[in-house]
This record gives sequence, structure tokens and C-alpha cells, in this order.
Amino acid sequence: MVRSIFLRGFDQQIADMIGDHMEEHGVKFYRGWVPTEIIKLEEGTPPRLLVKAKESDGDETLEVEVNTVLLAIGRDPCTGTLNLDSAGVKISAKSGKILTTDNDQTTTPNIYAIGDVAEGRPELTPVAIHAGNLLAKRLFDGSTTLTDYTKIPTTVFTPMEYGCIGMSEEDAIAKYGGDDIEVYHTNHQALEAALPKRDENKAYCKLVCVKSEKERVVGFHYLGPNAGEVTQGFAVAIKLGATKNDFDSTIGIHPTTAETLTTLNITKSSGASSTKTGC
Amino acid sequence: MVRSIFLRGFDQQIADMIGDHMEEHGVKFYRGWVPTEIIKLEEGTPPRLLVKAKESDGDETLEVEVNTVLLAIGRDPCTGTLNLDSAGVKISAKSGKILTTDNDQTTTPNIYAIGDVAEGRPELTPVAIHAGNLLAKRLFDGSTTLTDYTKIPTTVFTPMEYGCIGMSEEDAIAKYGGDDIEVYHTNHQALEAALPKRDENKAYCKLVCVKSEKERVVGFHYLGPNAGEVTQGFAVAIKLGATKNDFDSTIGIHPTTAETLTTLNITKSSGASSTKTGC
Repeated sequence: MVRSIFLRGFDQQIADMIGDHMEEHGVKFYRGWVPTEIIKLEEGTPPRLLVKAKESDGDETLEVEVNTVLLAIGRDPCTGTLNLDSAGVKISAKSGKILTTDNDQTTTPNIYAIGDVAEGRPELTPVAIHAGNLLAKRLFDGSTTLTDYTKIPTTVFTPMEYGCIGMSEEDAIAKYGGDDIEVYHTNHQALEAALPKRDENKAYCKLVCVKSEKERVVGFHYLGPNAGEVTQGFAVAIKLGATKNDFDSTIGIHPTTAETLTTLNITKSSGASSTKTGC
Repeated sequence: MVRSIFLRGFDQQIADMIGDHMEEHGVKFYRGWVPTEIIKLEEGTPPRLLVKAKESDGDETLEVEVNTVLLAIGRDPCTGTLNLDSAGVKISAKSGKILTTDNDQTTTPNIYAIGDVAEGRPELTPVAIHAGNLLAKRLFDGSTTLTDYTKIPTTVFTPMEYGCIGMSEEDAIAKYGGDDIEVYHTNHQALEAALPKRDENKAYCKLVCVKSEKERVVGFHYLGPNAGEVTQGFAVAIKLGATKNDFDSTIGIHPTTAETLTTLNITKSSGASSTKTGC
């Protein structure tokens, strides 16, 4: 059951592709429904469970019988019992997360907050580790380097994995305007999947570029096998301000899926098909 | 049978690690031997074959009985029958390959040669494709961009895969001097190999950096699973002149093996162990 959209905050074209891929492989989604009650019908291993649900945006109800329920409920910050008020550390009334500045200071300047507990920060362990390292260097080693909370690479380990860096296509259009964004994209396929014609043209990648900045890449999206391994190195390049031309002028490693990113020549604006026709 | 060294032209520390790994998994190497004769002892599927060999640097001989012989004999350019002389196109007397300039011209200016047939060029298909694209753009589209034959990423698909970009450690030391080179390195392990304690600390990576150029990375070496996928993105970064600090300031994607490259903090010069101790 999906309350609203897949993977909020991520590129929605890719999120829907992930959902479609899972459906094709046998996962049934109820989109626009929320569970309201779970009743154990019968003990056992596994037990029989009745899940009652209602529409997210309506009053209809449905019942589904299953043997396992896994709830992805998200995370809440445990700030309620810290008595932060008395230290002058303010939290967001809505999220309960701690308000911080660009240099990770709270509203009490000698108190810092990093990681998931800080308002607006990504809930990613490597980001918190990184922010902690840099904060320690600023406090005790004379550094002035701030954590760059943009261009963060991350990977979603869905059956078809998804690696991304920077902005979703919709966020880039919101920031730069549709006329200043060009998207290069293609379907692709791992070599080992090509022969058995498995998941043909289900893998996909796109680069979201800002036209007025020499097609600087502000969004990297890779849907396919080994997404984390593929994405990591490109994150260094995008941190360095890589443009589409920098991707194009890099020699590909054959046969990999990552090399697809060095040969993208179909723009979304052209309307041409992104279906890959060759090896 | 290996005539001399493993993987000539590649970083020799890594080449030997690849050899050691294969030996541990049952491949028997005869190092310093060359085959002189193959005699079929018995027909069949497979047949019985006797391989006679002699020392590369000596006169001792040995005989080995096997059922399959695969010879990796390298490639020779087929320039002999092209009558290049009459067109004024010179070839190397030693290799038979065509001599070219930085812009891929032969000794006859209106004749160009790209790919494996050109003297001193890497024998890699993606390089030839790339050089052909750029040459066409120079000839017919007013471009002046030359193919950059340095910093080429490539992968050796040995059982433990090896991805590299740029210079071997020994080439970097030869060019910049040992005092100006710092090597950051670590053993590592894929998460899926950690639990069964398989090939512990057999994967390895190192960055070869030039101290006097803010530790610019001139050599990238990754030994481990999915090497091609891991290496491709870093190639864009290294093309852009990435320094060790650029690697360090990139946030890792967990759990991947590629993230290891963003957290290297052991220098070879420190003499500290490169053995990885944690997840």
C-alpha cells in the first residue's frame, strides 16, 4: 500500500519506473490507500492477517488478507525529552527536528546538531559522518569548510537499483526554468541481461543539465544494476562541476552499464525515442 | 605459462595481486616459461596434449600434460599488404604500426590513422571509437579537440576485476620522482563477501597523487568486484583534475565498495597496514 507517491523527494519519472518494474515482477501495489487496522485471523507460521485500509483521498475501504505486514513508518527525531528549551535550542514545531545554520549551529551558538536530527538535512548516515568530520575540523583544526548538502550521491536498493546525485528533473525545472534545462537520456541494459532478453530497455539513465551554464550536470539519475557502484565516481565529477561535454569526452569502459553515461546523445526536448537499439 | 610479468603496462603491484588471487583459487602458473611445442597424445573430447616449454631466461625445459591449450599471442597490425609506402605513409619498423601525430595524422598529412593500428596507441576499442568521433568532428565540423590519450579508464576482467585510470605507481614515480608521489591505499571487501569471510582483504585500491599539485590524482587503481562500473565515473573526475581532497569531500554511498575511494587515509609512506578492520 502506497499512501501517495513512490519515493518522495526523488525524481518521479524514475520512481514510477521502479514501481512499474516491481509490478511486472509480481509485486501488487495498492496506490492511494492507507492501512487502518490489522487483525490476526489465525495463528501460525506465517499467520493469516487481515489488513483493513481506506482511501488516502476518499472514504472507500478495502480488506486484504496477507501473511506478513511490514510497515515503513519513517523516522521521528527523539528531541522531545531532551529539554532543549532550557538550553535555548529551537526545534521545528512541525517536524520536531533541530533548526541549524549552514555551519550546523543551533540557535544556541555553542551547540551544534548534525545528522537526521537537524531540520532539512538528508536522512543518510554517510552524510552525518561527513558532517561530523568537517564540524570537528572546523571546531578544532582551523578549517572553514562547510558540509555541502547539495550534490549528495545516494542509492535506493530496489530490485532495479537507483543511484542519483543532485536534483530531480522536476526540482531542476523549478529552479532554473524549463527553457534552461536539457535532459539527455537513454534506456540501456546490462550485457548479461541482453542475451536472455530479460528486462529489455527497463534500465534507464538521464543527465539533467543547465543550458546556460555550458550544460553543467545538476542531476544524475541511473536506474539499473550496481547503481551504487556506478554512481559513486560520478559524484566526484559532479562535485567538480562536470558538464555534459566532460561526460562525453571521457572514454567508456566496455562492457559496462556505466559507460552509457559517456555516450548520451538523445535529448528529451528532441522527442526522439530513448529506446536502446544496439549492444 | 607466463613469459615474464603479468599484465605488462599495468601497475605491477596490482598485477601480482591478481596473479596471487588466481593461484589461491586453483590456477597454477608457470612463470618465466614459454611453450615450444604442443603434441597431441590422444584424440578425444577433450584430447590429451603434451606441452613442451623452455625457460624464458635459460635453457631448462619442462613438459606438462593438459587437455586444453589457449594461446594469448597478442595482436599484429595488418599493414604489410596495404602498400603504404607508395602513399608515403610510414610505419614503425619494429611494430609494423603506423606513425601518427597528436592529431592522428600519418606522415602523409591527408591520411589519418586511429585505433590499434597507430603506433603507441592503447589497443582498446572505446578509445578508437572516441578518436574516430573526434577526428570526424575536426575534419568536418570545425572542432580542434584532440583525443586525450592519457587518463584513459580501462578494466581487466580477471576473476578479481581490475579497473584503472591514468598512471601506474611505477610510471608516476618515474615521471614525478618518488619524493613528489604519495600513494593512499587500503584493502577492502564487498559487503556480500564479508559475512562468509571469503577473499578477506583481497580487494584493494589505491590513489597515486602528486604532492606538489595539491595531491592531484594521476593514478587510480581498483581491484575488486564490479571494477568497470566502479571505475567509469571516477574517470570523469580525474579528467577534470580531481585531487585527493575532492575524493575525500565526496559523500560515500553505503554499502558499496566504491565508497572506499572516498575514505582513503592510509599512506604508503606511513608504512601503516592497509588491512581493513571494519565494515
